[in-house]
Amino acid sequence: MLRKAKRRIWRWTRLCEAYASHSRVSFSLSDETNEGIKMDYTPISLQKKLAKFSDHWSPKIIAQMNDYHFKLAKIEGDFVWHRHDDTDEVFIALDGEMSIEFRDGKVDLKAGEMFVVPKGVEHKPLAERECKIMLVEPVGTVNTGNSSGEMTADNNIWI
Amino acid sequence: MLRKAKRRIWRWTRLCEAYASHSRVSFSLSDETNEGIKMDYTPISLQKKLAKFSDHWSPKIIAQMNDYHFKLAKIEGDFVWHRHDDTDEVFIALDGEMSIEFRDGKVDLKAGEMFVVPKGVEHKPLAERECKIMLVEPVGTVNTGNSSGEMTADNNIWI
Repeated sequence: MLRKAKRRIWRWTRLCEAYASHSRVSFSLSDETNEGIKMDYTPISLQKKLAKFSDHWSPKIIAQMNDYHFKLAKIEGDFVWHRHDDTDEVFIALDGEMSIEFRDGKVDLKAGEMFVVPKGVEHKPLAERECKIMLVEPVGTVNTGNSSGEMTADNNIWI
Repeated sequence: MLRKAKRRIWRWTRLCEAYASHSRVSFSLSDETNEGIKMDYTPISLQKKLAKFSDHWSPKIIAQMNDYHFKLAKIEGDFVWHRHDDTDEVFIALDGEMSIEFRDGKVDLKAGEMFVVPKGVEHKPLAERECKIMLVEPVGTVNTGNSSGEMTADNNIWI
């Protein structure tokens, strides 16, 4: 009985999440198991998603894995110094070149290279010319971390 | 006092993790703050990492973000049907083409496309010709999930 109730709560939670986030997974309500998940078998194309926006420093969500978001962003110029006190952050350069400055060093990334910024470490991403990147970070992560200001972007835009 | 002790435990835990996993982050033990982290500013090149191995269906870890691993794999032929009961799993095709079969459908991925396999959903990855992929999944995830057998690979090999 409790197991059934738990399953119902799980399914409704996922359904609400899916609705709220425009997730591409929809759920069949006709049975009580995970086997009832009706999936959308469309692959997520990074190129197609990148074609959907042009603004800089405003990451867009393209996928969710557990409580992590995969985001795409286009960046150009200097971002603000900031840190994420509760999480590491992954940068993957997809097209172009970017750098991440740290208080005591710098990493340069070109397409096909990635870097993990450890939690709590101040950093400033920058790109001389437009660079397309993928970010991986926990749901709810704010782009400017502990800093705020005009570069803080909405952190829940799906494309 | 408790705060200091907590910090010490945190630092030692990270240090042990770093040692155990050949993490590229090393820690200065000379102070008590995150600012003591000494970083290696070498980018992680997917191409260079892919050149380091040739075996199929044996994911290699290239980066850790919080308690998640980024892994590279080369795949060819059919994998086994399996599911991961506790986690979603991300597939990103880097070079070549692959498919993921499900009990009621299939997704085809080519380079630059990704897919999130929801937790608990049975799937079978396959590739007619060699395909290079990136996987993102929690630390400790076993490639064959609930199945076992000769295709089960060591899940803690860093390259």
